[in-house]
Amino acid sequence: MEENMKFRPLHDRIVVRRLESEERTKGGIIIPDTAKEKPQEGEVVAVGPGARNDEGQIVALDVKAGDRILFGKWSGTEIKIDGEDFLIMKEADVMGVIEVQAEQRKAA
Amino acid sequence: MEENMKFRPLHDRIVVRRLESEERTKGGIIIPDTAKEKPQEGEVVAVGPGARNDEGQIVALDVKAGDRILFGKWSGTEIKIDGEDFLIMKEADVMGVIEVQAEQRKAA
Amino acid sequence: MEENMKFRPLHDRIVVRRLESEERTKGGIIIPDTAKEKPQEGEVVAVGPGARNDEGQIVALDVKAGDRILFGKWSGTEIKIDGEDFLIMKEADVMGVIEVQAEQRKAA
Amino acid sequence: MEENMKFRPLHDRIVVRRLESEERTKGGIIIPDTAKEKPQEGEVVAVGPGARNDEGQIVALDVKAGDRILFGKWSGTEIKIDGEDFLIMKEADVMGVIEVQAEQRKAA
Amino acid sequence: MEENMKFRPLHDRIVVRRLESEERTKGGIIIPDTAKEKPQEGEVVAVGPGARNDEGQIVALDVKAGDRILFGKWSGTEIKIDGEDFLIMKEADVMGVIEVQAEQRKAA
Amino acid sequence: MEENMKFRPLHDRIVVRRLESEERTKGGIIIPDTAKEKPQEGEVVAVGPGARNDEGQIVALDVKAGDRILFGKWSGTEIKIDGEDFLIMKEADVMGVIEVQAEQRKAA
Amino acid sequence: MEENMKFRPLHDRIVVRRLESEERTKGGIIIPDTAKEKPQEGEVVAVGPGARNDEGQIVALDVKAGDRILFGKWSGTEIKIDGEDFLIMKEADVMGVIEVQAEQRKAA
Repeated sequence: MEENMKFRPLHDRIVVRRLESEERTKGGIIIPDTAKEKPQEGEVVAVGPGARNDEGQIVALDVKAGDRILFGKWSGTEIKIDGEDFLIMKEADVMGVIEVQAEQRKAA
Repeated sequence: MEENMKFRPLHDRIVVRRLESEERTKGGIIIPDTAKEKPQEGEVVAVGPGARNDEGQIVALDVKAGDRILFGKWSGTEIKIDGEDFLIMKEADVMGVIEVQAEQRKAA
Repeated sequence: MEENMKFRPLHDRIVVRRLESEERTKGGIIIPDTAKEKPQEGEVVAVGPGARNDEGQIVALDVKAGDRILFGKWSGTEIKIDGEDFLIMKEADVMGVIEVQAEQRKAA
Repeated sequence: MEENMKFRPLHDRIVVRRLESEERTKGGIIIPDTAKEKPQEGEVVAVGPGARNDEGQIVALDVKAGDRILFGKWSGTEIKIDGEDFLIMKEADVMGVIEVQAEQRKAA
Repeated sequence: MEENMKFRPLHDRIVVRRLESEERTKGGIIIPDTAKEKPQEGEVVAVGPGARNDEGQIVALDVKAGDRILFGKWSGTEIKIDGEDFLIMKEADVMGVIEVQAEQRKAA
Repeated sequence: MEENMKFRPLHDRIVVRRLESEERTKGGIIIPDTAKEKPQEGEVVAVGPGARNDEGQIVALDVKAGDRILFGKWSGTEIKIDGEDFLIMKEADVMGVIEVQAEQRKAA
Repeated sequence: MEENMKFRPLHDRIVVRRLESEERTKGGIIIPDTAKEKPQEGEVVAVGPGARNDEGQIVALDVKAGDRILFGKWSGTEIKIDGEDFLIMKEADVMGVIEVQAEQRKAA
C-alpha cells in the first residue's frame, strides 16, 4: 500500500499499520505484558505535512513512511483502507523509532 | 450547492456534507463498526478564511471545497441549507483527506 | 436601531438581534429540531473594535453590522435596548455568515 | 469623587460605581429580569494603567473614567470609599459602553 | 523594619504588613462586612525584582515599599520577622493602591 | 557538602538542606504555628542552570548555593546524599531569601 | 547496549536503564523509604534530539547517554530490548544528574 496510499493525513497526523507478532523485529524490542501502559509496535505508512508553530509556519514531522515505531496502546483511531486495518494518530503519540538492520528489514 | 453556497463559515470552520454509503469511495476506505471513535466520511462544501496566529495573521486552511475527508463521529453541528443536511465543524476535527482517482470521482 | 446604536461593545464582543421565523432568509438555512447544539439565526447590529493579539495590537473582527449569522443556542447574554431584545456575545460564538441575495434582503 | 479618587487600581482593574434605577439612562438599556446572567449598569470612576502583554509592555485600557458600562452581575469586589459603595473589577468583566447623549448625561 | 528588611522576596512576590483598624487611613476606604470577598488593607514593606516575561526579561513590579494597598482576604502566607507578623503574596493579589495625603500619612 | 556536591539538579531545580530550629537565623524570621501554609527555612546547596524561555534560551536562577530561603511546607522531594537529608525542588517553590548579617552567618 | 542502541527516542524522550541496588553509586545518594514521591536511580542509554520551541527549532536535551540520573518513581513506560528492561520517559521527568567519580564509575 505504500506506493498507492489513498489517505493523506492532515497536520501532524500519521497513518500506522499495527505489526502482529510474526512481523515484529526478530530478537528486538519486546514489551512485557506487565507494562503499565503497554506500547505497541507499528509501521508508519503515511505522514501529514506537520503542524504549524506560533508563527503559522509548518514544522515537518520527525517520522517518515517506513519507520518502525512504538506507540501507546490507546493511541489513534482505527480505519480500514482497501480491506486492511490502520490507525490514524498524532506524531506526539509516537515514543520512538526502532532502528532495523537491513537483513531484518528484508525478513519482515 | 457547491456553485451557490449561501453560508460562509468564519475563521477555521468548514461546512461538510456527510456521505452516505452509496456515495462513498468504491473499494476505498472503510471504517469498521468496532472502531472506538468511528470516523465518518464527508465532502467539504465551504471553508472559512482560516484562524489567526499569535501575531493576528490569518493562516489559510489545508482543506478546500471538494475534498473528501474523514472526521470524528461526534464532530460538528448540524444545519439544513435549501433542504439539504450539512455539518459545521473546525478543520482540527478533520483527520485527513481521501485522495480519489479521476474515474472514481465521476462515479461518485 | 442600526443608525442610532446606543451600546458600544468592547473588544471582540458583538450585539446581535435574534431573528424570529418570519424574518428568516426565505428558502434558506433551516436548523433541524433534532440538531444536538441547535444554532440560531441573528443579525449583527454592533461590533467591538476587536481583541488584542499577543503584542497588544487590536485585530479587527470578521463580522460587521448587518451580517446575518448563525450562533450557538446558548451563546450570549440578553439585554433590552429601547424596548427591543438583543444578545451580547463574542465573535468566537459566531459559526458563520449567511450570504443573502439583494431581493431577499429587501423582503426580510 | 471623580475629582479626588483616593484609590488607584492596579494593572487592568477598574473602580465602578453601580447605578441605581433612578440614575440609569432614560429610555435606554433595560436588562430583563429573566436574563440568564443579568448585566448591571455602572459608571467607571477610576482605571488602572493596563495589563502587560507578553513582551512586558503596558497595554492601556479601553474604558475611561466617566464611561457608563454594562458588567456581569457577579463581577467585582465591593469596597466603600468615603461612605460610598464601589466595585473593583477587571476590564474583561465589562461587556460594553453605553453611549449617552449630552442632554441625558445632564439629567442623570 | 523598612530600613532593615531581612527578607528579600523573589520574583513577583511582595512582603506586606496587615494594617489594624487604628492604623487605617482616616475617613478613607472601608470594606463592608457584607462584602463577598472582603479585601484587607496593608502596607508593602518589601518587593521582589519582578517576574520574567516570555523572553526571560525581568518586568519590575508596580507597587513599591511604603504603598498602602488593598488585597484579597485569603491572599498570602503568614510569617513572623523579629516578632512582627507579615504576609508574603504575589503582586497579582494586590487590587490597588490607596493614595494617602501627606497629613494622613503622618497621623497614621 | 557544599564543596563537593555530588548531585547536579537539572533546569530550574535546586537542592535544599532543611534547617532545624537550632540552626535557624537568631532573632530572625519565625513562622507561626498557626500559619495556613507554614513555610520552612532551608539552605540552598546546589542549583540547576535554569529553565528555558520560549526561545529555548536558558534563564539563570535567582537563588545561589549558600542562600537561606523560605519555601512551602509541602515543596520538594526528599533524598539522602552521603547520609544527609536534602530536598529537590523548583525555584518557583522558593518564597524569598533571608538576608543574614555576617556575625549571624558565623554563629549559625 | 550503549554501542548498539536499537531504539531511537523521539523529541524530548530518553531511554533509561533502572539501576538495581548493587549497581548504585557507592556511599552516594540514598533515597529514604519514607520519601513521599520516592525517586529512582537510573542510567541514560539513549536520548532524543530534543523538543521544539515556539519557533519550531529543536532544543537539545541536557542529559546524555551514560548519565546517572534520579527520576520520579512513576515516570516512564516499560519496554524490553534484547531481553533487558528499559524505561522510556521525558527529560522533564529527570530531577538531576549524579556526578560519579572516575573510580566509582569503574567499580559500578
